Amino acid sequence: MMTDIEIAQSAKMLPIVDVAKKVGLSEDDIELYGKYKAKVSLDVLKKNNKDGKLILVTAINPTPAGEGKSTVTIGLGQALCKMQKNAVIALREPSLGPVFGVKGGAAGGGYAQVVPMEDINLHFTGDMHAITTANNLLSAAIDNHIHQGNSLKIDSRKILFKRVLDMNDRALRKVIVGLGGTANGFTREDGFTITVASEIMAILCLSNDLMDLKERFGNILVAYNTDGEPVYCKDLKVNGAMAMLMKDAIKPNLVQTLDNTPAIIHGGPFANIAHGCNSILATKMALKLGDYAITEAGFGADLGAEKFFDIKCRYGSLNPSAVVLVATIRALKHHGGVKKENLNISNVEALSKGIENLEKQIENVQKFGVPVVVAINKFITDSNEEVEFIKDFCNKKGVEVSLTEVWEKGADGGLDLAEKIVKTIEESESNFKVLYDEKLSVKEKIETIAKEIYGADGVEFVPAVKKQIAQIEKIGADKLPICVAKTQNSLSDNGSLLGRPRGFKITVKEVRLSNGAGFIVALTGNIMTMPGLPKVPAAEKIDIREDGVIEGLF
Amino acid sequence: MMTDIEIAQSAKMLPIVDVAKKVGLSEDDIELYGKYKAKVSLDVLKKNNKDGKLILVTAINPTPAGEGKSTVTIGLGQALCKMQKNAVIALREPSLGPVFGVKGGAAGGGYAQVVPMEDINLHFTGDMHAITTANNLLSAAIDNHIHQGNSLKIDSRKILFKRVLDMNDRALRKVIVGLGGTANGFTREDGFTITVASEIMAILCLSNDLMDLKERFGNILVAYNTDGEPVYCKDLKVNGAMAMLMKDAIKPNLVQTLDNTPAIIHGGPFANIAHGCNSILATKMALKLGDYAITEAGFGADLGAEKFFDIKCRYGSLNPSAVVLVATIRALKHHGGVKKENLNISNVEALSKGIENLEKQIENVQKFGVPVVVAINKFITDSNEEVEFIKDFCNKKGVEVSLTEVWEKGADGGLDLAEKIVKTIEESESNFKVLYDEKLSVKEKIETIAKEIYGADGVEFVPAVKKQIAQIEKIGADKLPICVAKTQNSLSDNGSLLGRPRGFKITVKEVRLSNGAGFIVALTGNIMTMPGLPKVPAAEKIDIREDGVIEGLF
Repeated sequence: MMTDIEIAQSAKMLPIVDVAKKVGLSEDDIELYGKYKAKVSLDVLKKNNKDGKLILVTAINPTPAGEGKSTVTIGLGQALCKMQKNAVIALREPSLGPVFGVKGGAAGGGYAQVVPMEDINLHFTGDMHAITTANNLLSAAIDNHIHQGNSLKIDSRKILFKRVLDMNDRALRKVIVGLGGTANGFTREDGFTITVASEIMAILCLSNDLMDLKERFGNILVAYNTDGEPVYCKDLKVNGAMAMLMKDAIKPNLVQTLDNTPAIIHGGPFANIAHGCNSILATKMALKLGDYAITEAGFGADLGAEKFFDIKCRYGSLNPSAVVLVATIRALKHHGGVKKENLNISNVEALSKGIENLEKQIENVQKFGVPVVVAINKFITDSNEEVEFIKDFCNKKGVEVSLTEVWEKGADGGLDLAEKIVKTIEESESNFKVLYDEKLSVKEKIETIAKEIYGADGVEFVPAVKKQIAQIEKIGADKLPICVAKTQNSLSDNGSLLGRPRGFKITVKEVRLSNGAGFIVALTGNIMTMPGLPKVPAAEKIDIREDGVIEGLF
Repeated sequence: MMTDIEIAQSAKMLPIVDVAKKVGLSEDDIELYGKYKAKVSLDVLKKNNKDGKLILVTAINPTPAGEGKSTVTIGLGQALCKMQKNAVIALREPSLGPVFGVKGGAAGGGYAQVVPMEDINLHFTGDMHAITTANNLLSAAIDNHIHQGNSLKIDSRKILFKRVLDMNDRALRKVIVGLGGTANGFTREDGFTITVASEIMAILCLSNDLMDLKERFGNILVAYNTDGEPVYCKDLKVNGAMAMLMKDAIKPNLVQTLDNTPAIIHGGPFANIAHGCNSILATKMALKLGDYAITEAGFGADLGAEKFFDIKCRYGSLNPSAVVLVATIRALKHHGGVKKENLNISNVEALSKGIENLEKQIENVQKFGVPVVVAINKFITDSNEEVEFIKDFCNKKGVEVSLTEVWEKGADGGLDLAEKIVKTIEESESNFKVLYDEKLSVKEKIETIAKEIYGADGVEFVPAVKKQIAQIEKIGADKLPICVAKTQNSLSDNGSLLGRPRGFKITVKEVRLSNGAGFIVALTGNIMTMPGLPKVPAAEKIDIREDGVIEGLF
């Protein structure tokens, strides 16, 4: 069997100008980055042809068994194209840092991949680097402002905005900067996060155009001053320069799948402290270019789909037509209590327990008024009995279900799903609505999500959080949507509660304001925003040969 | 009068594919980065057509009056093209960080510029970002190695390799990393330099191909272990991954001048702790594509040309045919003791004193066996008397002299210089030789440069340096060329000694090994490798409009 990279390296790519042509883009609409990558001009969004139908791919709560959400997203796009439908995929762009940590890329798998896989996972078109630079310009401006007299009276103990680097580097999590005497500024505690966790990334992904981006940059809350008043990025007057640094990064990137389906890859914010979706602009571009736009959200539906609907669709005025909910029989058995080593054994009883997770996630999607199709990613170990059980279950719930084999068979493995999605969109009207009014109080919004989506009985707020919420209210930033940072493995905030936990409360331990991005982050635990390298980093296995062929990457 | 950016923005650029065609490059030889930038495949260097003639542009010791070395380099290329000569320019690529500090770009000036100026000065084709990433991967690997058990016994007090960022950020000059407990590794002192000061940059510029680059990465001396033994990058096994990160960055970038002369812009190391020249690969590419390749070196001829000859030409087996030595009458009067505010007043006496600087730099170039042409960058305030004095002086020295006006008139302003260069190359044979045998001792090599080039009586070595040299000898790295870091403003190591100082010694205060780049740095003072932002950073004036037009940049 071929590895992912071998499959990717043997792909017959079309020149990207030809992929662009397929969706009506002329050479003037794109800027080439080599022969197989291009940036698409934002002017394309002004064309007044009809928008396509928006399909979100989400999943049950992730398990170590793996669900294959990205693979289904890509495979569904490939299948729709094979059916002669004009489909365009919109995906998140991967971070470079983790490539050197634990082996593994982020461009699908098997026969459902986007290419050129290596470039996508490395510098790609430089978006991450532009974000790193814009972020660190603001950081340099903060310390420089203090050094040059501090007329804004920034309290150096209350600087909220951190530096970033696109590298797994634990030594940078907590640092002291400004050492070495007067010439080097004021000494203070600081830390680096990985670039994808930067608020700049979240802003890129929630902006509707360059001026929106610039305004959001200006609204970043960078610190409090010694009077306890907020200091924004715009007070430091660098949001124009930051927007200039993003002038190319704001344009979505066009690549292709293994069978030349157009794929737009743009933006990839963290799915915990941020909303975990590709950019609004990428999704709008896919809608403008395709009759069907297929996109995905991070983690399971409780986090990913909820944030996609309540944050991304809210800011982008997007109107999703259908949702694909990905599960595997193995993962559902894991939710039913089966250990990883026993997942190969047929076990309908465990499946019937674990399927509650799927059930709840179906209900979650339906609360937003969007029709849902279940996609079961098939494994060789799935028994007929198990497959029949799932089909029965979905029939009783009144939702379509499809078995997909896109990893193994590419487009052919997704044709059934594609047909069912097309039918669903044609026959079932979407009545999309967000879950809550952003004008509710911060607590009410968090409680609504916890009760409605997680199935919690309520929410505990630790004392410090009350003060944090009061502060957000004081500066008038409380009317923003909520971005919950919690474990992806459970509907609850306890990763070991699998299936469909009941009778629990979630505990909010911290509330942070991402004022530029436009959401309030509610954290239920510590979130690591700067990964480390493992004992044997993948970097040690990576090499490049004289002929330019890369080895050991993925 | 139009500003530089207005002139640049009104340039009639050719699509870069057409510029490429002019020098025989097909679309398969290049990778486009948008319509006006391209990377050139290294396979082009394997073509067996004849190499062109190499022309170095250098200068007298820089003064606050400005000399216009880059402008002459570009203008000379434009003029040669206007004469129907096939000329290609090779320049350094500018660093992004300083763009936000003090206003000012690095792409020529007036009517002698390379374009697209904004892109060249911003992210360009991502080379700087690739260098930053490769550098910081090595840094992360060092700290990770210590954290994961430190089998190499790295002494965390003796780590020589620093992190980098392409940003003017004084707060990062001296930092403590690894704070916050066990999970974040070991606490130690570290510091960031700006990306162009990274040894990765120097290596990029001194490599002859990808495998050479990878080997040099492996040879970087990163630390000493607790037994006092050297630890190299290759011991951490990340040089393959670092080379992979540079797979595109190693390819030279093709752009054009205001009148469409091909210009290759690639690599830009610091001119003090490194050698201050564009990459060997860029120069070789210019030689392969053009009948005349025009390149420049940093600072004055004592530093820039010396390093160009003794480091770059040595490693690249380059054979320069001629040197252009740039001066202005204003700058020579400054060397003669005239204050900046009085430079507009004709003063042949001061000029006759200051011209000694030009005289010594002519002699310096001649020591390398290469014919020299003096280019006087003309100013409106230059008196006829002053001009005649210089002409007489050069005639007596037996060197050609030309008055250039490329800033004001572009190609037309450089025609006389171009004719004289062509004539010099045709009539005067170059007998290029390096100044010293790299097999001499470190002290002998430094003394040779100091006496021969700076005109010093000798060299003092502070006691610590003796130990540092002994250490370099111990690990067998003493047979490398020397890279002196000293003030650019004087032939001596004292910036206030203008003209042609005599009866002085230089003092070497530190010796550092850039083992990967392949040179030994001799420092005569403290060198700042991380700039800061000024009170009102240029970033505050920079903005981007809704239509994408950039304002306030330069």
